[in-house]
Amino acid sequence: MLVQAYGAHAGDKPLEPMQIKRRAPAAHDVQIDIAFCGICHSDLHQVRAEWAGTQFPCVPGHEIVGRVSAVGDHVKNYKVGDLVGVGCIVDSCQHCDDCESGLENYCDGMIGTYNFPTPDAPGWTLGGYSQNIVVHERYVLRIRHPEAQLAAVAPLLCAGITTYSPLRHWNAGPGKKVGVVGIGGLGHMGIKLAHAMGAHVVAFTTSESKREAAKALGADEVVVSRNAEEMAAHTKSFDFILNTVAAPHDLDAFLVLLKRDGALTLVGAPASPHPSPNVFNLITKRRTIAGSMIGGIPETQEMLDFCAEHGIVSDIELIRGDQINESYERMLKGDVKYRFVIDNATLAG
Amino acid sequence: MLVQAYGAHAGDKPLEPMQIKRRAPAAHDVQIDIAFCGICHSDLHQVRAEWAGTQFPCVPGHEIVGRVSAVGDHVKNYKVGDLVGVGCIVDSCQHCDDCESGLENYCDGMIGTYNFPTPDAPGWTLGGYSQNIVVHERYVLRIRHPEAQLAAVAPLLCAGITTYSPLRHWNAGPGKKVGVVGIGGLGHMGIKLAHAMGAHVVAFTTSESKREAAKALGADEVVVSRNAEEMAAHTKSFDFILNTVAAPHDLDAFLVLLKRDGALTLVGAPASPHPSPNVFNLITKRRTIAGSMIGGIPETQEMLDFCAEHGIVSDIELIRGDQINESYERMLKGDVKYRFVIDNATLAG
Repeated sequence: MLVQAYGAHAGDKPLEPMQIKRRAPAAHDVQIDIAFCGICHSDLHQVRAEWAGTQFPCVPGHEIVGRVSAVGDHVKNYKVGDLVGVGCIVDSCQHCDDCESGLENYCDGMIGTYNFPTPDAPGWTLGGYSQNIVVHERYVLRIRHPEAQLAAVAPLLCAGITTYSPLRHWNAGPGKKVGVVGIGGLGHMGIKLAHAMGAHVVAFTTSESKREAAKALGADEVVVSRNAEEMAAHTKSFDFILNTVAAPHDLDAFLVLLKRDGALTLVGAPASPHPSPNVFNLITKRRTIAGSMIGGIPETQEMLDFCAEHGIVSDIELIRGDQINESYERMLKGDVKYRFVIDNATLAG
Repeated sequence: MLVQAYGAHAGDKPLEPMQIKRRAPAAHDVQIDIAFCGICHSDLHQVRAEWAGTQFPCVPGHEIVGRVSAVGDHVKNYKVGDLVGVGCIVDSCQHCDDCESGLENYCDGMIGTYNFPTPDAPGWTLGGYSQNIVVHERYVLRIRHPEAQLAAVAPLLCAGITTYSPLRHWNAGPGKKVGVVGIGGLGHMGIKLAHAMGAHVVAFTTSESKREAAKALGADEVVVSRNAEEMAAHTKSFDFILNTVAAPHDLDAFLVLLKRDGALTLVGAPASPHPSPNVFNLITKRRTIAGSMIGGIPETQEMLDFCAEHGIVSDIELIRGDQINESYERMLKGDVKYRFVIDNATLAG
């Protein structure tokens, strides 16, 4: 099946309308008519070949929501008409310890939603900037939000789970003081989720202008990280700090804010390294620096259900297909509150 | 009371015999006639003023074993004649969350065995290179090893607990694959302890010549870390790696050997930073880099009892007081298997 998509033919070319092939649904496949797709910063890195190994044509997009339009013979959990989502993962080995633990995101054989090898044409996966997608039902998520919220649900599939998973893993909840560094696509979800989990949430931002916005998202306190006095007032007080900032920066400034046994978890990887953290800051309070990458499939379903129950969606700006290139430029300037989402009905132009 | 000690009057002067004052035992104090004291690399850093804030005269030593020679009126757990030890901690606030959790080592008010403020003369603590010491009973440990092993027990008070605590905290034991990086004062204890805990122990060394020695200490496997092929064979296989090397080195080489959720824990802090670790190596398997500092008092007792039960002591070379300066030079060259211990009966010369 040929479907309309938006993608790029080279790293230095803008995205443009194109047609791509989708396979016919196999026994365990779900075919999804995509209603909306969020724009993640990773999309930009990949399609502009800022990360190694981009295959062209490249169709990005891994914050996918829509409606089931066909199912394979053996599909058990979905039927035509269901509201569903697909995130960053469309396949994995299904038998390693990670897969068996429902942590397909850490499987060595994980297949990402775009730019990963596949037997389908053209030989690598093509993502959600397209009118439909065909995915094994194991990697399809059910959406229980009201349909009117569907566009704002899309970013939960990456920005939501990427922050939910470490917040849960490091036990954010009542009685815990949790920091969220950076108030962007990921950070704004981190604040909403940590708040809904019952933690005392402190948002860190470099810009005074985001103070009120962070409170509106659910932060109990906001710290401007460039203000040394404000930072010092929080020394040794955090159980957990979720750091969503991928640009190289001083990690020690946050490490010293952790209590004994506190963890600073990074969900963004900088293009050039952070300054090397001071080992004394780790040793003297048994602190940890950790990393976390998206989340597993069962955990993604749990996150979607949690969000539906708590009325949580992303704050979005809906755009047309022909605004994707412009939205990339605005994303680079931080000019979005907080996530662009494509209305996939407009992809045909 | 005036007692004989060995210490330095300045950072660039050798250690020499000197007399120091000890307080009379107060109600909760235990006075200990020191039989042996281990030499830790920290002693050298402090007495040579390589760390900031060394007060002179400086008497190092925090691997202390000996016999109780007097007790204060309210001492409950020790009597004259008992075999006891004192490690790195001689006081703490006794009421913070760390102290109440038996983790006095992380208390902000922890008083180290030397070079920390005290009301006693001369105003800072003086360590175990001395004939006796007076310590609040809370910080005194019972030794259950046979007296003949006493000298070799001394290093357990720092090198032992510094490795035991993280091994326990990160659950070294049966079914776990545990690495120990560096085979020196700390590392040789790490290998013995991890082996006794039932873990599969892999020792990492930069020198082929230490291969057999590491196996003799209890390592199931030995990897020469400069051999890329040997290292690659262990990719993504460790639950936990205890890194005892304080010199700056490439942490990524060890991070990539950890499984999902594995931890690389540092117990040494380099004078200049390690190369900044690659955040991708943390994110892609939810790995952590952590630090750990000595251990708490109850945990130190647990370690001593564990070692007594399993017949574990340190491998030592016993020296006289007048060999301390020479032993420092040999320690800098790695020329010791694996810990120098002073026979304190020789301090008077």
